[in-house]
Amino acid sequence: MISPEKHNRMANAIRFLAMDAVEKANSGHPGLPLGAADVATVLFGRYLKFDPKNPLWPDRDRFVLSAGHGSMLLYSLLYLTGYEDMTIEDIKSFRQLGAKTAGHPEYGHASGIETTTGPLGQGIANAVGMAIAERKLSEEFGSDLQSHYTYALVGDGCLMEGISQEAIALAGHLKLNKLIVIWDDNKITIDGAVSLSDSTDQIARLKSANWNTIEIDGHNPDEIAAAIEAAHKSDKPTFIAAKTIIGFGAPNKQGTHKVHGSPLGAEEIAAARKSLNWEAEAFSVPADVLDAWRLVGLRSNKARKEWEERLAKADTEKRAEFNRRFAGDLPGGFDTAIDAFKQKIAANNPTVATRKASEDVLEVINGLLPETLGGSADLTPSNNTKTSQMKSITPTDFSGRYMHWGIREHATAAAMNGIALHGGLIPYSGGFLIFSDYCRPSVRLAALMGIRVVHVWTHDSIGVGEDGPTHQPVEHFAALRAIPNLLLFRPADETETAECWQIALKEKHRPSGLALTRQNLIPARTEYEDKNLCAHGAYELISASDAKVSIFASGSEVEIAIKAQQQLAAKGISTRVVSVPCFELFAEQDADYREAIIGNAPVKIGVEAGIRQGWDAIIGSTGAFIGMKSFGASGPAKDLYKHFGITAEAVVAAAEAKLA
Amino acid sequence: MISPEKHNRMANAIRFLAMDAVEKANSGHPGLPLGAADVATVLFGRYLKFDPKNPLWPDRDRFVLSAGHGSMLLYSLLYLTGYEDMTIEDIKSFRQLGAKTAGHPEYGHASGIETTTGPLGQGIANAVGMAIAERKLSEEFGSDLQSHYTYALVGDGCLMEGISQEAIALAGHLKLNKLIVIWDDNKITIDGAVSLSDSTDQIARLKSANWNTIEIDGHNPDEIAAAIEAAHKSDKPTFIAAKTIIGFGAPNKQGTHKVHGSPLGAEEIAAARKSLNWEAEAFSVPADVLDAWRLVGLRSNKARKEWEERLAKADTEKRAEFNRRFAGDLPGGFDTAIDAFKQKIAANNPTVATRKASEDVLEVINGLLPETLGGSADLTPSNNTKTSQMKSITPTDFSGRYMHWGIREHATAAAMNGIALHGGLIPYSGGFLIFSDYCRPSVRLAALMGIRVVHVWTHDSIGVGEDGPTHQPVEHFAALRAIPNLLLFRPADETETAECWQIALKEKHRPSGLALTRQNLIPARTEYEDKNLCAHGAYELISASDAKVSIFASGSEVEIAIKAQQQLAAKGISTRVVSVPCFELFAEQDADYREAIIGNAPVKIGVEAGIRQGWDAIIGSTGAFIGMKSFGASGPAKDLYKHFGITAEAVVAAAEAKLA
Repeated sequence: MISPEKHNRMANAIRFLAMDAVEKANSGHPGLPLGAADVATVLFGRYLKFDPKNPLWPDRDRFVLSAGHGSMLLYSLLYLTGYEDMTIEDIKSFRQLGAKTAGHPEYGHASGIETTTGPLGQGIANAVGMAIAERKLSEEFGSDLQSHYTYALVGDGCLMEGISQEAIALAGHLKLNKLIVIWDDNKITIDGAVSLSDSTDQIARLKSANWNTIEIDGHNPDEIAAAIEAAHKSDKPTFIAAKTIIGFGAPNKQGTHKVHGSPLGAEEIAAARKSLNWEAEAFSVPADVLDAWRLVGLRSNKARKEWEERLAKADTEKRAEFNRRFAGDLPGGFDTAIDAFKQKIAANNPTVATRKASEDVLEVINGLLPETLGGSADLTPSNNTKTSQMKSITPTDFSGRYMHWGIREHATAAAMNGIALHGGLIPYSGGFLIFSDYCRPSVRLAALMGIRVVHVWTHDSIGVGEDGPTHQPVEHFAALRAIPNLLLFRPADETETAECWQIALKEKHRPSGLALTRQNLIPARTEYEDKNLCAHGAYELISASDAKVSIFASGSEVEIAIKAQQQLAAKGISTRVVSVPCFELFAEQDADYREAIIGNAPVKIGVEAGIRQGWDAIIGSTGAFIGMKSFGASGPAKDLYKHFGITAEAVVAAAEAKLA
Repeated sequence: MISPEKHNRMANAIRFLAMDAVEKANSGHPGLPLGAADVATVLFGRYLKFDPKNPLWPDRDRFVLSAGHGSMLLYSLLYLTGYEDMTIEDIKSFRQLGAKTAGHPEYGHASGIETTTGPLGQGIANAVGMAIAERKLSEEFGSDLQSHYTYALVGDGCLMEGISQEAIALAGHLKLNKLIVIWDDNKITIDGAVSLSDSTDQIARLKSANWNTIEIDGHNPDEIAAAIEAAHKSDKPTFIAAKTIIGFGAPNKQGTHKVHGSPLGAEEIAAARKSLNWEAEAFSVPADVLDAWRLVGLRSNKARKEWEERLAKADTEKRAEFNRRFAGDLPGGFDTAIDAFKQKIAANNPTVATRKASEDVLEVINGLLPETLGGSADLTPSNNTKTSQMKSITPTDFSGRYMHWGIREHATAAAMNGIALHGGLIPYSGGFLIFSDYCRPSVRLAALMGIRVVHVWTHDSIGVGEDGPTHQPVEHFAALRAIPNLLLFRPADETETAECWQIALKEKHRPSGLALTRQNLIPARTEYEDKNLCAHGAYELISASDAKVSIFASGSEVEIAIKAQQQLAAKGISTRVVSVPCFELFAEQDADYREAIIGNAPVKIGVEAGIRQGWDAIIGSTGAFIGMKSFGASGPAKDLYKHFGITAEAVVAAAEAKLA
């Protein structure tokens, strides 16, 4: 048992590391680490199942600092509990270029950082994803191998952001009882008191979403402990409202917005040292306190060893599968299966929408990869993401593999991030491409973290038709291609769809999006080709000797490019066609390949039912572009293509004009 | 009093117009219009204050169809109540190219469409903005001139989207008692039963946000009427949960997801005709029913006339001001004031961050324009959006002009759209540029609708510094420039900031965003110039005869461009500098101007602390670009600029390499 005095000293170690680091950096957020130090001390000190020497232990509890600006809370805990890659030097270089200790916790910078947070509300939704993953894997591999809690520490900002409601409603619906969210209820935001902008009864709100709720004094260790223990017994997710004083311990500034996001200043830190009776120098932790914290870091060692033993004793096949899944490796035979499927396509050459082609590919993938967890943000019949193997997950039955995420694109994407971060599963989901805007912050974070999530985005252009401009992406290809480290695929037919899926799943460290059509497409490729041509990002579909015109197109417009090529050829104008399913991969090819694909034809034409932005990298700024210059319109898809001039005839006219 | 039988016939007129139009278009959503016809009949029939002959009457009640897919409900109502620009021919051309009757309601297509809806959750947040506008204008001009309700009809999808929570919490906090939201509680979404993905107790949820809540049978006219009357008496916003049967009247499909988004089919429509005892042919409304509806359209005529009389009797100045404000015209002297301010700047040439420059400009603007309603999504001290004239709006006092929106970027942007749509006010708000991602769907809708809202987006690059990549925009200039009809400004100093604000406010039919720095900038312009140079989008800042190098830059990188120009000049390399504060305006200039600005220098270099995407339109695909190729990092801003190679030295090196 930790005595009250010892508790205080342990919590104060967090507080002073945070104050000192922010002070030295002359930048940062001391308010949360000081206010939440008691909660963190009890949680890490007594309950969190983790092993700093084995930070990737698959059955560890997950801790998400949703209020990421309080990063020094996490860094302090990692250092104190003995993570080897978090030294006092790292703490001292807080917020400096190249340091692990970035302004906000960055996944991959140091062990124990379970996710990148900072954009508010993301962490709570990541945590929902982690809790989903735990429940699913526990169902699959048994509680011997998967049985852990997911904790998230959230601030007022997290709870105000809309994504939190989506995440909360979903978690309550799914009865994720191993999810425990602790609210750092300090009544302060940047502008001042929370009451300036909010009057929500958060307890009532969480209850309305079927959560277990507990209210405590966030500075009382016994109340904190009792709340966590009660949460462990709940059959619902638990929300612990911990009343805290922001900046606790800074005697003149605590409880005000002044401590939120600025260094306290030497004077105030000196006052805090006095008021908290803290004798140690800056960045030094008294030996007794450090020892106590290091013991905390050893607390779960036994549990981990027992878990290792259970894994060792497990059936060979199960163990191998468990290890494979957590290593993120695909099963043997994946490439062979895709190749076989491509051969099957070449034998039939179906005219299908790429959303349907994606369903066909997923039928193969889901038959082979038990780790896929599919879903849709309430567009299952439109996204074609549910295959024959996929039973729906329900609150009482997690044996299924398909999630009805509800009309919640943002939390869906963030929860998918959490699932991927947790490990053991590969999440993919469905939505309309237009609504990638609704989840863009989470897509960006997936790209920043470098994690494998796959977004199936259907209805990818004015081909949507009658639903009109509110539902027709125009700028979305450009906007998504703008996000670093995200692969946006726009396959032209079923073969390309299979190849794009193959790449997306093999990319362990990048998220992907597949932009797919609502409307049927004539196949662009009719012969089986054992290589994955889409892996080059762009490739020659129709070659021509001494070409006068090169047409570059993606997705549904490849069909138009081919038709234009035929019309130009009929006029004696030698023309080639290049399919461009992925700009990012093309940009990564070597210069020789890029030059060869771009070619030397005097006329270059890009065709895509989106805006030109980005295309100049391929067609040059003097190339012609056949695409959109404005928002779309409501009408049958064929009428719209004609109306907006995205036709083979327009391509031919543009070529002729350039050649004239 | 409308008899039950007459009510039914009136409601059925909506139902059959919707069924017939969807059937003829072979596309659309009959479920909502059929299910919500009773609610709409009572609301429009007995309560809504509107005058189809004067659709822009400033004191009309606003009706927002947040569940925009049910557009035929609205179109039917507009036709039935006698809006002159909604004919039966318009109804027949539902969802056809060029028709007013687009798949989702499009603002500007026809009178009576108060906002563009379809992307779920936007409408309820628009309605919150409209209710804010009403309350603010009522405070300002008196309830004689402004005293109306705002009604929104929302579906399950609207309530699941996170934006709804932001909007709901804000409305409850502000006690917007003239906001009445009716929930079409039909328990069905596209995937099937709502229970597949949600278990929220919506009544409890709304209560937790301080709303008045009422539960009714949405097919019982008396209960609907009683609920609306109770809502009128509430001192809080009211949420009416109206239990309905989706697709009510389609005997074999009603109550299932089959009626949500597909035509019913001739057979089912025939069955509905029988079951609802409806004798009329497709698209024909029995004379007695049409007469009844046309009377509804006349119901508020007297109220409007009385309002006109009150306006006529008002103090001349007040009347002129009221009319000016609703016409959206700026007050006389606006340009003069900006010019005077520019002269003042030129006298001092301050080195300031553009966020601070924006505050200085706003100080002038807010002193002159009583119609500005400022705010920030809880970043007031960072965004510099609150000027000396601006008292905070509180739940009990709307005499202020500054809104603490809370940590709710999405609802903020959507509510700003609602404020602009309402008329009488010009909303501007503050946020970090990185979080433009959180509100992108609403920004897009503002652009699609062509309305004047201004987003002040500060902390616009790696210049953010220590907060790191989660807070550093990299792709956001490109992503925002991708949105058609949105003006993204990136001023380089205080003078440009003043000019960009001037343009943004004079643009009645386009939204604007101002990307502003956290860090101080040396002035790019030091001489007073009476013309607004930024209005050209790009202009020559430093000219050079026989230039060998042209450097194009925006915002904080103009300083770098100028430094590079000096270094190159010192080396005898003739170099000019072009400032590019707004890509969109530059693209709109005539060819001569564009060519002159781009110039003939053999080397073109773009400099911007963002990605290259979009820049080729100016520097060509062979130009050099000094900017970002990846996410940013955490560290002091100066270190980051050096680390990512965005320096004058890098520009010089690039120029020399190209010239070699």
